[in-house]
Amino acid sequence: MESAIPEHLKTTRSRHRRIPDDYVPPYPSFVARHKPKVARVVMAYFGLQYQGEAPPAAASALGDIAARFADAQGPAHWDRAQYFDQAGYSNVVSVAYWDDAAKFDTWFDAAREAWTGRANGIGRYIEVLRPAVARYETLFSSPDRAEGVAVMAEGMSGEVQEHAYWGGMRDRIPLSQTDEMAPGGKPALERDGSRLRIVPHDNLCLIRSGQDWSDTDAAERKLYLEEVEPVLREGMDFLRDDGVRIGCYTNRYMRVLGADGSPTEKSYGQSWWHSLAALERWAESHPTHVRIFGAAMKYLSTLGPAAKLRLYHEVTVAAAAEQFFEYRDCHARTGMLAAVAVD
Amino acid sequence: MESAIPEHLKTTRSRHRRIPDDYVPPYPSFVARHKPKVARVVMAYFGLQYQGEAPPAAASALGDIAARFADAQGPAHWDRAQYFDQAGYSNVVSVAYWDDAAKFDTWFDAAREAWTGRANGIGRYIEVLRPAVARYETLFSSPDRAEGVAVMAEGMSGEVQEHAYWGGMRDRIPLSQTDEMAPGGKPALERDGSRLRIVPHDNLCLIRSGQDWSDTDAAERKLYLEEVEPVLREGMDFLRDDGVRIGCYTNRYMRVLGADGSPTEKSYGQSWWHSLAALERWAESHPTHVRIFGAAMKYLSTLGPAAKLRLYHEVTVAAAAEQFFEYRDCHARTGMLAAVAVD
Repeated sequence: MESAIPEHLKTTRSRHRRIPDDYVPPYPSFVARHKPKVARVVMAYFGLQYQGEAPPAAASALGDIAARFADAQGPAHWDRAQYFDQAGYSNVVSVAYWDDAAKFDTWFDAAREAWTGRANGIGRYIEVLRPAVARYETLFSSPDRAEGVAVMAEGMSGEVQEHAYWGGMRDRIPLSQTDEMAPGGKPALERDGSRLRIVPHDNLCLIRSGQDWSDTDAAERKLYLEEVEPVLREGMDFLRDDGVRIGCYTNRYMRVLGADGSPTEKSYGQSWWHSLAALERWAESHPTHVRIFGAAMKYLSTLGPAAKLRLYHEVTVAAAAEQFFEYRDCHARTGMLAAVAVD
Repeated sequence: MESAIPEHLKTTRSRHRRIPDDYVPPYPSFVARHKPKVARVVMAYFGLQYQGEAPPAAASALGDIAARFADAQGPAHWDRAQYFDQAGYSNVVSVAYWDDAAKFDTWFDAAREAWTGRANGIGRYIEVLRPAVARYETLFSSPDRAEGVAVMAEGMSGEVQEHAYWGGMRDRIPLSQTDEMAPGGKPALERDGSRLRIVPHDNLCLIRSGQDWSDTDAAERKLYLEEVEPVLREGMDFLRDDGVRIGCYTNRYMRVLGADGSPTEKSYGQSWWHSLAALERWAESHPTHVRIFGAAMKYLSTLGPAAKLRLYHEVTVAAAAEQFFEYRDCHARTGMLAAVAVD
């Protein structure tokens, strides 16, 4: 059993964990381990938005960004997913990860200009976090298939202690050793011609929380798709439609796409929050998520190592200077635009 | 909105609450407020145990202890409840509360001798905590009907902030401002002739968690008895039968008795725990309690002030010197005896 916080990020605590030192979680979980030299990562979401069938401009933009991702200064890993938002638009989001912020900085300006620099008839957005490694955490139910930011990690930890209790998410973030991570301010809108930017605020929170049922056999797949997924979807819909009043600016329940653009048996929820505390409160008290958690606890405790469903997440609490949000020709409830008044 | 921790028990914190200062709970709750001069309370459980119909010795003992409770040095409040334990015995427990430990000390010796000093053909036990006021907390869904230790309080608080999230229980205990309240040691058995005593350990935890459906109308009563109570019972049964491995030494799901000895529409669960942390883990992760909590959150958030179901609890984390456990002619799984090997 090891701490989710790696040795080189341990500091003298001014804040305690929520568990006693002899706590033993009821089932195993794992976290991504970067090389100690990695100081900062970049998570960049490039979104496309359109109604109806994909117009040629969409395919063109997706091809262009994929080509840019293949650059020498491009990301260490990327994936692509799709969802239909509350306004009836299709959104295709390509998420790219770097573990070298200098590379990203070299790469980004041209990619940004290509993505949001001119009109092409469809909506586009860029949402970037570049957190110091002390500002995010990951969690995986299995150590043998990385997703998201973890793909570029050196590897997975052994079984970690800080999970399967409310507060584990916070306790896994190294900065929680010394910092409450309270939010500072509210998002504001900044116009730059047709580009709308969100002026971020300190300690905004991002979660990407994924599900992978591709390895399940028929019985487990049925259990997941009939018992767990509908409860998850209900929670995702709540956050999408009513999240703002509890501090969730926006939520996307994404279906991961394969290389050929067809849906895979993987999904993830991605949401932006006013604070880690707001995310904690929803997770532990909203009936939909309480049921999700209860179902997952029971599922993983019961099936144990036999479970083929894979669950993971990555949670970041970003400083204001670590955030970038830019939207062009998107509807007013797109991403962080939902957090401000757009005329 | 006020803190559950009264002004005179506030200290310079070395440990943080689990919520930000701007946290607003989703429904109101209240805590008992003692006069500041109350330094310590006493909670004394006098249990009788027998099989089948109540023998004459039971009625005699119950009459005797009730008469003693009426003494000038007797408790400020007491009540009585019954349950059938896992070994098939009926247990009648009279619980008495003092807010003046000196009075209790004057009163107790003779009452103890009368209760466990000689054989009378039935099992008897005494379980006492005498915590400093910084070592316990209460919580009530309504401010207008006190139960248990709260009956002898000066009154109820206004709406308190620290509730409706996991960790609120700990955050309401004043000692949590500076102390993890980690358990010290394990219970041990001490024989004194026919009396078996449990040598206690630091930071043992007691919860009495009550339900009162006496004021509900037909529709709400049906909702409680059909949707909530069975889930609660399932959780209580789990703790009774399988609690030891998760740190619950013993659990009693009691039905409160009226003055004439007949069951009322009130119940409470009473359980002894190795630590507050063990109680927290069960409450927030065991499927039965997660369902209880989810049901209660939904119930109270939905019905709001219209709800007539009343819920309350009192939770104590006692120092070793604040505990007393004595058993005579009881079966080996009675109360804290379940925590040790009794030949």
